[in-house]
Amino acid sequence: MNNHPDSFTIKPIGYVFSPYKQKFGLARQSGLIPNAVIEIRLQPLFTPDCVRGLQSFDYVWVHFIFHAAVDEGWLPLIRPPKLGGRKKMGVFATRSPHRPNHLGLSLLKLEDIRIDAQQQITLILSGADLLDQTPVIDIKPYLAYVEAKPHAECGFAHARPLLPVCWQPRALQALQKWQISPDFKLLVEESLAQDPRPAHQHNKDKIFVMQLDDYDVLFEVKDEEAWVVNVRKRGFDVLT
Amino acid sequence: MNNHPDSFTIKPIGYVFSPYKQKFGLARQSGLIPNAVIEIRLQPLFTPDCVRGLQSFDYVWVHFIFHAAVDEGWLPLIRPPKLGGRKKMGVFATRSPHRPNHLGLSLLKLEDIRIDAQQQITLILSGADLLDQTPVIDIKPYLAYVEAKPHAECGFAHARPLLPVCWQPRALQALQKWQISPDFKLLVEESLAQDPRPAHQHNKDKIFVMQLDDYDVLFEVKDEEAWVVNVRKRGFDVLT
Repeated sequence: MNNHPDSFTIKPIGYVFSPYKQKFGLARQSGLIPNAVIEIRLQPLFTPDCVRGLQSFDYVWVHFIFHAAVDEGWLPLIRPPKLGGRKKMGVFATRSPHRPNHLGLSLLKLEDIRIDAQQQITLILSGADLLDQTPVIDIKPYLAYVEAKPHAECGFAHARPLLPVCWQPRALQALQKWQISPDFKLLVEESLAQDPRPAHQHNKDKIFVMQLDDYDVLFEVKDEEAWVVNVRKRGFDVLT
Repeated sequence: MNNHPDSFTIKPIGYVFSPYKQKFGLARQSGLIPNAVIEIRLQPLFTPDCVRGLQSFDYVWVHFIFHAAVDEGWLPLIRPPKLGGRKKMGVFATRSPHRPNHLGLSLLKLEDIRIDAQQQITLILSGADLLDQTPVIDIKPYLAYVEAKPHAECGFAHARPLLPVCWQPRALQALQKWQISPDFKLLVEESLAQDPRPAHQHNKDKIFVMQLDDYDVLFEVKDEEAWVVNVRKRGFDVLT
Protein backbone atom coordinates (compact mmCIF):
# COMPACT_ATOMS: atom_id res chain seq x y z
CA MET A 1 0.00 0.00 0.00
CA ASN A 2 2.29 2.68 -1.25
CA ASN A 3 1.60 6.37 -1.73
CA HIS A 4 -1.02 6.45 0.98
CA PRO A 5 -0.87 9.41 3.30
CA ASP A 6 -0.36 8.26 6.89
CA SER A 7 -2.84 10.77 8.19
CA PHE A 8 -5.27 13.53 7.27
CA THR A 9 -5.79 16.87 8.97
CA ILE A 10 -9.40 17.69 9.73
CA LYS A 11 -10.52 21.18 10.67
CA PRO A 12 -13.79 21.99 12.42
CA ILE A 13 -16.29 23.71 10.10
CA GLY A 14 -18.22 24.94 13.14
CA TYR A 15 -19.18 24.27 16.74
CA VAL A 16 -22.24 23.06 18.61
CA PHE A 17 -24.17 25.16 21.12
CA SER A 18 -26.21 22.72 23.18
CA PRO A 19 -28.11 22.68 26.49
CA TYR A 20 -26.14 19.51 27.34
CA LYS A 21 -22.93 20.62 29.05
CA GLN A 22 -22.17 17.11 30.32
CA LYS A 23 -22.66 13.60 28.97
CA PHE A 24 -25.05 12.59 31.75
CA GLY A 25 -28.61 12.93 30.37
CA LEU A 26 -27.49 13.35 26.76
CA ALA A 27 -29.41 11.11 24.34
CA ARG A 28 -27.50 7.93 23.56
CA GLN A 29 -28.41 8.31 19.87
CA SER A 30 -29.76 11.10 17.71
CA GLY A 31 -33.54 11.45 17.35
CA LEU A 32 -34.40 9.94 20.73
CA ILE A 33 -34.98 13.31 22.41
CA PRO A 34 -36.95 15.30 19.81
CA ASN A 35 -36.88 18.50 21.90
CA ALA A 36 -33.10 18.52 22.23
CA VAL A 37 -32.48 21.59 20.06
CA ILE A 38 -28.95 22.73 19.30
CA GLU A 39 -27.29 25.32 17.13
CA ILE A 40 -24.33 24.74 14.87
CA ARG A 41 -22.51 27.97 14.09
CA LEU A 42 -20.35 27.64 11.02
CA GLN A 43 -16.93 29.24 10.82
CA PRO A 44 -16.91 32.65 9.08
CA LEU A 45 -15.17 31.26 5.98
CA PHE A 46 -18.37 29.45 5.01
CA THR A 47 -20.56 31.84 3.05
CA PRO A 48 -24.35 31.49 2.63
CA ASP A 49 -23.61 29.90 -0.77
CA CYS A 50 -22.35 26.80 1.08
CA VAL A 51 -25.83 25.96 2.40
CA ARG A 52 -27.84 26.88 -0.72
CA GLY A 53 -30.60 24.28 -1.19
CA LEU A 54 -30.05 22.64 2.20
CA GLN A 55 -33.38 23.88 3.54
CA SER A 56 -35.20 21.49 1.17
CA PHE A 57 -33.98 18.53 3.25
CA ASP A 58 -35.76 17.39 6.42
CA TYR A 59 -32.71 15.73 7.95
CA VAL A 60 -28.97 16.27 7.83
CA TRP A 61 -25.97 14.20 8.83
CA VAL A 62 -23.69 15.91 11.28
CA HIS A 63 -20.15 14.57 11.35
CA PHE A 64 -18.36 15.55 14.52
CA ILE A 65 -15.47 14.74 16.81
CA PHE A 66 -16.21 13.18 20.21
CA HIS A 67 -13.98 15.87 21.68
CA ALA A 68 -14.57 14.84 25.30
CA ALA A 69 -13.22 11.35 24.50
CA VAL A 70 -10.17 12.30 22.42
CA ASP A 71 -7.78 12.36 25.39
CA GLU A 72 -9.18 9.07 26.65
CA GLY A 73 -8.15 7.14 23.55
CA TRP A 74 -10.06 4.12 22.29
CA LEU A 75 -10.79 0.54 23.29
CA PRO A 76 -11.10 -2.61 21.14
CA LEU A 77 -14.02 -3.81 23.30
CA ILE A 78 -16.91 -1.72 24.62
CA ARG A 79 -19.76 -2.50 27.02
CA PRO A 80 -22.80 -1.00 25.24
CA PRO A 81 -25.40 0.51 27.62
CA LYS A 82 -28.02 -1.37 25.54
CA LEU A 83 -26.71 -4.62 26.93
CA GLY A 84 -26.89 -3.39 30.50
CA GLY A 85 -23.11 -3.06 30.66
CA ARG A 86 -22.79 -6.82 31.00
CA LYS A 87 -21.54 -7.84 27.57
CA LYS A 88 -18.63 -6.59 25.51
CA MET A 89 -18.83 -5.76 21.83
CA GLY A 90 -16.17 -4.77 19.33
CA VAL A 91 -15.73 -1.03 19.04
CA PHE A 92 -16.73 -1.09 15.33
CA ALA A 93 -20.00 -2.84 16.30
CA THR A 94 -20.88 0.09 18.57
CA ARG A 95 -21.32 3.84 18.34
CA SER A 96 -19.06 4.41 21.34
CA PRO A 97 -17.08 7.68 21.50
CA HIS A 98 -13.99 5.67 22.52
CA ARG A 99 -13.20 4.67 18.95
CA PRO A 100 -10.24 5.14 16.62
CA ASN A 101 -10.34 8.70 15.23
CA HIS A 102 -13.23 9.60 17.61
CA LEU A 103 -15.59 10.27 14.71
CA GLY A 104 -19.25 10.77 15.52
CA LEU A 105 -22.27 10.73 13.22
CA SER A 106 -25.72 12.06 14.09
CA LEU A 107 -28.89 12.34 12.05
CA LEU A 108 -30.60 15.55 13.11
CA LYS A 109 -33.80 17.27 12.02
CA LEU A 110 -33.08 20.53 10.27
CA GLU A 111 -35.40 23.12 11.82
CA ASP A 112 -33.98 26.33 10.40
CA ILE A 113 -31.00 28.01 8.79
CA ARG A 114 -30.26 31.53 9.99
CA ILE A 115 -27.96 33.97 8.28
CA ASP A 116 -27.21 37.15 10.20
CA ALA A 117 -26.16 40.59 8.99
CA GLN A 118 -22.50 39.52 9.01
CA GLN A 119 -23.38 36.51 6.82
CA GLN A 120 -22.69 34.18 9.74
CA ILE A 121 -24.55 30.88 9.25
CA THR A 122 -26.33 29.10 12.11
CA LEU A 123 -28.16 25.80 11.68
CA ILE A 124 -30.95 25.01 14.15
CA LEU A 125 -31.35 21.27 14.60
CA SER A 126 -33.47 19.04 16.82
CA GLY A 127 -33.22 15.48 18.10
CA ALA A 128 -29.64 16.18 19.10
CA ASP A 129 -27.28 13.93 21.04
CA LEU A 130 -24.42 16.42 20.98
CA LEU A 131 -22.53 18.05 23.81
CA ASP A 132 -22.01 21.78 23.97
CA GLN A 133 -18.82 22.89 22.14
CA THR A 134 -18.65 19.76 19.97
CA PRO A 135 -16.47 20.40 16.90
CA VAL A 136 -18.47 19.75 13.70
CA ILE A 137 -16.45 18.53 10.74
CA ASP A 138 -19.09 18.05 8.03
CA ILE A 139 -22.78 18.53 7.22
CA LYS A 140 -24.49 16.40 4.57
CA PRO A 141 -28.06 16.00 3.35
CA TYR A 142 -29.89 12.80 4.32
CA LEU A 143 -30.76 10.75 1.24
CA ALA A 144 -33.83 8.64 2.09
CA TYR A 145 -33.67 6.70 -1.18
CA VAL A 146 -30.31 5.23 -0.21
CA GLU A 147 -30.13 5.59 3.57
CA ALA A 148 -33.59 4.55 4.81
CA LYS A 149 -33.42 0.80 5.50
CA PRO A 150 -36.29 0.33 7.94
CA HIS A 151 -36.04 -3.45 7.83
CA ALA A 152 -32.28 -3.75 8.38
CA GLU A 153 -31.24 -6.26 11.01
CA CYS A 154 -29.45 -4.36 13.76
CA GLY A 155 -28.19 -6.97 16.19
CA PHE A 156 -28.52 -5.79 19.76
CA ALA A 157 -29.34 -2.19 18.83
CA HIS A 158 -33.05 -1.53 19.21
CA ALA A 159 -35.18 1.22 20.71
CA ARG A 160 -35.50 0.91 24.46
CA PRO A 161 -38.80 1.29 26.31
CA LEU A 162 -39.24 4.77 27.81
CA LEU A 163 -39.57 5.49 31.52
CA PRO A 164 -42.68 7.41 32.59
CA VAL A 165 -41.62 10.77 34.08
CA CYS A 166 -43.41 12.39 37.04
CA TRP A 167 -42.83 15.67 38.90
CA GLN A 168 -42.74 16.08 42.65
CA PRO A 169 -44.48 19.23 43.98
CA ARG A 170 -41.17 20.89 44.87
CA ALA A 171 -39.95 20.42 41.30
CA LEU A 172 -43.15 21.94 39.88
CA GLN A 173 -42.74 24.90 42.22
CA ALA A 174 -39.19 25.36 40.95
CA LEU A 175 -40.46 25.47 37.35
CA GLN A 176 -42.75 28.34 38.33
CA LYS A 177 -40.12 30.11 40.40
CA TRP A 178 -37.63 30.19 37.52
CA GLN A 179 -40.33 30.73 34.90
CA ILE A 180 -39.06 27.71 33.01
CA SER A 181 -40.59 27.30 29.53
CA PRO A 182 -42.86 24.37 28.59
CA ASP A 183 -40.21 23.38 25.98
CA PHE A 184 -37.59 23.03 28.69
CA LYS A 185 -39.99 20.95 30.80
CA LEU A 186 -40.53 18.67 27.81
CA LEU A 187 -36.77 18.43 27.27
CA VAL A 188 -36.35 17.30 30.90
CA GLU A 189 -39.08 14.70 30.46
CA GLU A 190 -37.70 13.35 27.19
CA SER A 191 -34.18 13.21 28.64
CA LEU A 192 -35.25 11.32 31.77
CA ALA A 193 -37.56 8.98 29.81
CA GLN A 194 -34.36 7.60 28.22
CA ASP A 195 -33.13 6.59 31.67
CA PRO A 196 -29.75 8.31 31.80
CA ARG A 197 -28.49 6.25 34.75
CA PRO A 198 -25.39 4.16 34.11
CA ALA A 199 -26.26 0.45 33.94
CA HIS A 200 -24.30 -0.39 37.10
CA GLN A 201 -26.29 2.13 39.16
CA HIS A 202 -29.77 0.89 38.29
CA ASN A 203 -30.26 -0.68 41.67
CA LYS A 204 -28.98 2.28 43.64
CA ASP A 205 -31.42 4.24 45.73
CA LYS A 206 -30.01 7.69 45.06
CA ILE A 207 -30.76 11.08 43.65
CA PHE A 208 -29.06 11.80 40.34
CA VAL A 209 -28.25 15.25 38.96
CA MET A 210 -28.59 16.03 35.27
CA GLN A 211 -27.27 19.38 34.08
CA LEU A 212 -29.34 21.06 31.40
CA ASP A 213 -28.51 24.60 30.33
CA ASP A 214 -28.27 26.66 33.54
CA TYR A 215 -30.20 24.17 35.61
CA ASP A 216 -29.49 21.11 37.73
CA VAL A 217 -32.31 18.63 37.43
CA LEU A 218 -32.49 16.31 40.46
CA PHE A 219 -34.27 13.01 39.93
CA GLU A 220 -34.63 9.49 41.21
CA VAL A 221 -36.00 6.30 39.66
CA LYS A 222 -38.42 4.17 41.70
CA ASP A 223 -40.39 1.16 40.47
CA GLU A 224 -39.46 1.96 36.87
CA GLU A 225 -40.72 5.55 37.11
CA ALA A 226 -38.51 8.62 36.96
CA TRP A 227 -39.40 11.33 39.47
CA VAL A 228 -38.11 14.87 39.16
CA VAL A 229 -37.29 15.87 42.72
CA ASN A 230 -36.18 19.45 42.18
CA VAL A 231 -34.83 21.87 39.58
CA ARG A 232 -32.09 24.22 40.74
CA LYS A 233 -30.69 27.20 38.89
CA ARG A 234 -26.92 26.97 39.10
CA GLY A 235 -25.29 29.71 41.16
CA PHE A 236 -28.62 30.70 42.71
CA ASP A 237 -30.17 28.23 45.10
CA VAL A 238 -27.83 25.42 45.90
CA LEU A 239 -29.29 25.23 49.38
CA THR A 240 -32.94 24.65 48.50
CA MET B 1 -14.42 29.79 21.37
CA ASN B 2 -11.39 29.16 23.49
CA ASN B 3 -9.61 25.90 24.13
CA HIS B 4 -10.76 24.38 20.86
CA PRO B 5 -8.16 22.45 18.94
CA ASP B 6 -7.65 23.99 15.51
CA SER B 7 -7.44 20.62 13.86
CA PHE B 8 -7.59 16.87 14.41
CA THR B 9 -5.36 14.20 12.95
CA ILE B 10 -7.21 11.29 11.41
CA LYS B 11 -5.48 8.01 10.55
CA PRO B 12 -6.85 5.43 8.13
CA ILE B 13 -8.09 2.30 9.90
CA GLY B 14 -7.91 0.40 6.61
CA TYR B 15 -8.11 0.61 2.83
CA VAL B 16 -10.62 -0.30 0.13
CA PHE B 17 -10.01 -2.91 -2.55
CA SER B 18 -12.54 -2.21 -5.29
CA PRO B 19 -13.09 -3.12 -8.95
CA TYR B 20 -13.55 0.63 -9.58
CA LYS B 21 -10.10 2.05 -10.32
CA GLN B 22 -11.53 5.30 -11.68
CA LYS B 23 -14.51 7.49 -10.86
CA PHE B 24 -16.17 6.93 -14.24
CA GLY B 25 -18.83 4.22 -13.77
CA LEU B 26 -18.68 4.31 -9.97
CA ALA B 27 -22.11 4.50 -8.33
CA ARG B 28 -23.03 8.05 -7.41
CA GLN B 29 -24.35 6.85 -4.05
CA SER B 30 -24.05 3.67 -2.05
CA GLY B 31 -26.61 0.90 -2.61
CA LEU B 32 -27.35 1.78 -6.22
CA ILE B 33 -25.13 -0.97 -7.65
CA PRO B 34 -25.90 -3.99 -5.45
CA ASN B 35 -23.24 -6.15 -7.15
CA ALA B 36 -20.44 -3.67 -6.51
CA VAL B 37 -18.53 -5.74 -3.97
CA ILE B 38 -15.46 -4.38 -2.24
CA GLU B 39 -13.13 -5.44 0.51
CA ILE B 40 -11.96 -3.28 3.38
CA ARG B 41 -8.75 -4.59 4.89
CA LEU B 42 -8.20 -3.23 8.37
CA GLN B 43 -4.75 -2.21 9.58
CA PRO B 44 -2.95 -4.92 11.58
CA LEU B 45 -3.38 -3.04 14.86
CA PHE B 46 -7.11 -3.87 14.81
CA THR B 47 -7.60 -7.29 16.38
CA PRO B 48 -10.63 -9.54 15.80
CA ASP B 49 -12.01 -8.18 19.12
CA CYS B 50 -12.65 -4.86 17.36
CA VAL B 51 -15.37 -6.37 15.12
CA ARG B 52 -16.98 -8.68 17.71
CA GLY B 53 -20.77 -8.58 17.22
CA LEU B 54 -20.59 -6.64 13.94
CA GLN B 55 -21.82 -9.66 11.93
CA SER B 56 -25.27 -9.26 13.49
CA PHE B 57 -25.82 -6.04 11.53
CA ASP B 58 -27.05 -6.04 7.92
CA TYR B 59 -25.56 -2.66 7.06
CA VAL B 60 -22.57 -0.64 8.17
CA TRP B 61 -21.54 2.97 7.76
CA VAL B 62 -18.18 3.41 6.13
CA HIS B 63 -16.52 6.74 6.83
CA PHE B 64 -13.80 7.48 4.33
CA ILE B 65 -11.68 10.20 2.77
CA PHE B 66 -12.38 11.22 -0.82
CA HIS B 67 -8.66 10.80 -1.42
CA ALA B 68 -8.84 11.54 -5.16
CA ALA B 69 -10.35 14.96 -4.39
CA VAL B 70 -8.09 16.05 -1.53
CA ASP B 71 -5.61 17.82 -3.78
CA GLU B 72 -8.44 19.51 -5.66
CA GLY B 73 -9.73 21.32 -2.57
CA TRP B 74 -13.39 22.24 -2.14
CA LEU B 75 -15.99 24.53 -3.64
CA PRO B 76 -18.81 26.50 -1.95
CA LEU B 77 -21.14 25.69 -4.88
CA ILE B 78 -21.51 22.37 -6.68
CA ARG B 79 -23.44 21.30 -9.79
CA PRO B 80 -25.08 18.03 -8.69
CA PRO B 81 -25.33 15.43 -11.49
CA LYS B 82 -28.96 14.91 -10.35
CA LEU B 83 -29.80 18.34 -11.68
CA GLY B 84 -28.21 17.64 -15.04
CA GLY B 85 -25.26 19.86 -14.19
CA ARG B 86 -27.38 22.94 -14.80
CA LYS B 87 -28.05 24.19 -11.29
CA LYS B 88 -25.68 24.98 -8.44
CA MET B 89 -26.23 23.88 -4.88
CA GLY B 90 -24.30 24.64 -1.70
CA VAL B 91 -21.61 22.09 -0.95
CA PHE B 92 -23.30 21.13 2.37
CA ALA B 93 -26.54 20.39 0.44
CA THR B 94 -24.67 17.83 -1.69
CA ARG B 95 -22.59 14.70 -1.22
CA SER B 96 -19.85 16.04 -3.49
CA PRO B 97 -16.26 14.91 -2.83
CA HIS B 98 -15.13 18.52 -3.22
CA ARG B 99 -16.11 19.44 0.32
CA PRO B 100 -14.27 20.81 3.34
CA ASN B 101 -12.36 17.93 5.00
CA HIS B 102 -13.25 15.61 2.09
CA LEU B 103 -15.22 13.28 4.35
CA GLY B 104 -17.30 10.59 2.68
CA LEU B 105 -20.06 8.43 4.13
CA SER B 106 -21.44 5.26 2.55
CA LEU B 107 -24.03 2.78 3.74
CA LEU B 108 -22.89 -0.66 2.60
CA LYS B 109 -24.33 -4.13 3.02
CA LEU B 110 -22.11 -6.28 5.20
CA GLU B 111 -21.69 -9.58 3.37
CA ASP B 112 -18.94 -11.20 5.41
CA ILE B 113 -16.12 -10.67 7.88
CA ARG B 114 -13.00 -12.72 7.25
CA ILE B 115 -10.18 -13.21 9.71
CA ASP B 116 -7.09 -14.92 8.35
CA ALA B 117 -4.40 -16.95 10.10
CA GLN B 118 -2.48 -13.74 10.87
CA GLN B 119 -5.62 -12.27 12.51
CA GLN B 120 -5.92 -9.79 9.63
CA ILE B 121 -9.52 -8.57 9.33
CA THR B 122 -11.23 -8.12 5.96
CA LEU B 123 -14.80 -6.89 5.59
CA ILE B 124 -16.69 -7.88 2.44
CA LEU B 125 -19.30 -5.28 1.53
CA SER B 126 -21.72 -4.80 -1.35
CA GLY B 127 -23.54 -1.84 -2.87
CA ALA B 128 -20.28 0.07 -2.86
CA ASP B 129 -19.57 3.48 -4.36
CA LEU B 130 -15.93 3.49 -3.33
CA LEU B 131 -12.80 3.75 -5.42
CA ASP B 132 -9.94 1.32 -5.09
CA GLN B 133 -7.42 2.41 -2.43
CA THR B 134 -9.88 4.66 -0.59
CA PRO B 135 -8.68 5.31 2.98
CA VAL B 136 -11.32 4.19 5.49
CA ILE B 137 -11.43 6.14 8.74
CA ASP B 138 -14.31 4.52 10.64
CA ILE B 139 -16.83 1.67 10.53
CA LYS B 140 -20.11 1.89 12.45
CA PRO B 141 -23.22 -0.27 12.68
CA TYR B 142 -26.39 1.01 10.99
CA LEU B 143 -29.12 1.71 13.52
CA ALA B 144 -32.47 1.36 11.74
CA TYR B 145 -34.45 2.61 14.74
CA VAL B 146 -32.76 6.01 14.52
CA GLU B 147 -31.45 6.22 10.94
CA ALA B 148 -34.28 4.85 8.78
CA LYS B 149 -36.42 7.84 7.80
CA PRO B 150 -38.19 6.54 4.68
CA HIS B 151 -40.51 9.55 4.49
CA ALA B 152 -37.88 12.27 4.88
CA GLU B 153 -38.12 15.10 2.37
CA CYS B 154 -34.91 15.10 0.34
CA GLY B 155 -35.10 18.11 -1.94
CA PHE B 156 -33.66 17.37 -5.33
CA ALA B 157 -32.13 14.03 -4.31
CA HIS B 158 -34.26 11.15 -5.55
CA ALA B 159 -33.62 7.84 -7.25
CA ARG B 160 -33.10 8.19 -10.99
CA PRO B 161 -34.73 5.91 -13.56
CA LEU B 162 -32.40 3.15 -14.76
CA LEU B 163 -31.23 2.72 -18.36
CA PRO B 164 -31.93 -0.65 -19.96
CA VAL B 165 -28.61 -2.35 -20.81
CA CYS B 166 -28.09 -4.48 -23.93
CA TRP B 167 -25.08 -6.40 -25.23
CA GLN B 168 -23.79 -6.30 -28.78
CA PRO B 169 -22.65 -9.69 -30.18
CA ARG B 170 -18.96 -8.71 -30.05
CA ALA B 171 -19.29 -7.86 -26.35
CA LEU B 172 -20.96 -11.21 -25.63
CA GLN B 173 -18.14 -12.96 -27.48
CA ALA B 174 -15.61 -11.10 -25.33
CA LEU B 175 -17.37 -12.35 -22.17
CA GLN B 176 -16.87 -15.90 -23.41
CA LYS B 177 -13.32 -15.34 -24.55
CA TRP B 178 -12.20 -14.03 -21.17
CA GLN B 179 -14.45 -16.43 -19.23
CA ILE B 180 -16.00 -13.51 -17.42
CA SER B 181 -18.23 -14.49 -14.50
CA PRO B 182 -22.00 -13.86 -14.43
CA ASP B 183 -21.41 -11.62 -11.38
CA PHE B 184 -19.08 -9.41 -13.37
CA LYS B 185 -21.62 -9.21 -16.21
CA LEU B 186 -24.25 -8.14 -13.69
CA LEU B 187 -21.86 -5.55 -12.27
CA VAL B 188 -21.37 -4.10 -15.77
CA GLU B 189 -25.14 -3.98 -16.28
CA GLU B 190 -25.85 -2.35 -12.93
CA SER B 191 -23.07 0.19 -13.46
CA LEU B 192 -24.28 1.19 -16.93
CA ALA B 193 -27.95 1.27 -15.85
CA GLN B 194 -26.95 4.24 -13.66
CA ASP B 195 -25.87 6.12 -16.78
CA PRO B 196 -22.31 7.05 -15.89
CA ARG B 197 -22.01 9.68 -18.63
CA PRO B 198 -21.32 13.23 -17.45
CA ALA B 199 -24.41 15.43 -17.86
CA HIS B 200 -22.76 17.64 -20.51
CA GLN B 201 -22.02 14.62 -22.73
CA HIS B 202 -25.54 13.21 -22.87
CA ASN B 203 -26.05 14.38 -26.41
CA LYS B 204 -22.72 13.16 -27.71
CA ASP B 205 -22.66 10.28 -30.13
CA LYS B 206 -19.58 8.55 -28.79
CA ILE B 207 -18.23 5.39 -27.28
CA PHE B 208 -17.38 5.66 -23.59
CA VAL B 209 -14.90 3.47 -21.73
CA MET B 210 -15.56 2.33 -18.18
CA GLN B 211 -12.72 0.58 -16.36
CA LEU B 212 -13.78 -2.29 -14.14
CA ASP B 213 -11.16 -4.49 -12.54
CA ASP B 214 -8.84 -5.59 -15.36
CA TYR B 215 -11.31 -4.79 -18.10
CA ASP B 216 -12.26 -1.84 -20.26
CA VAL B 217 -15.99 -1.86 -20.93
CA LEU B 218 -16.86 0.05 -24.12
CA PHE B 219 -20.43 1.31 -24.38
CA GLU B 220 -22.66 3.82 -26.06
CA VAL B 221 -26.10 5.18 -25.23
CA LYS B 222 -28.72 5.37 -28.00
CA ASP B 223 -32.40 6.22 -27.61
CA GLU B 224 -32.11 5.92 -23.84
CA GLU B 225 -30.61 2.43 -24.03
CA ALA B 226 -27.06 1.56 -23.01
CA TRP B 227 -25.29 -0.83 -25.39
CA VAL B 228 -22.14 -2.68 -24.41
CA VAL B 229 -20.00 -2.56 -27.54
CA ASN B 230 -17.01 -4.57 -26.36
CA VAL B 231 -15.12 -5.76 -23.30
CA ARG B 232 -11.33 -5.64 -23.48
CA LYS B 233 -8.86 -7.11 -21.05
CA ARG B 234 -6.27 -4.44 -20.36
CA GLY B 235 -2.81 -5.24 -21.66
CA PHE B 236 -4.14 -8.03 -23.86
CA ASP B 237 -6.28 -6.98 -26.77
CA VAL B 238 -6.26 -3.26 -27.26
CA LEU B 239 -6.57 -3.76 -30.99
CA THR B 240 -9.75 -5.86 -31.10
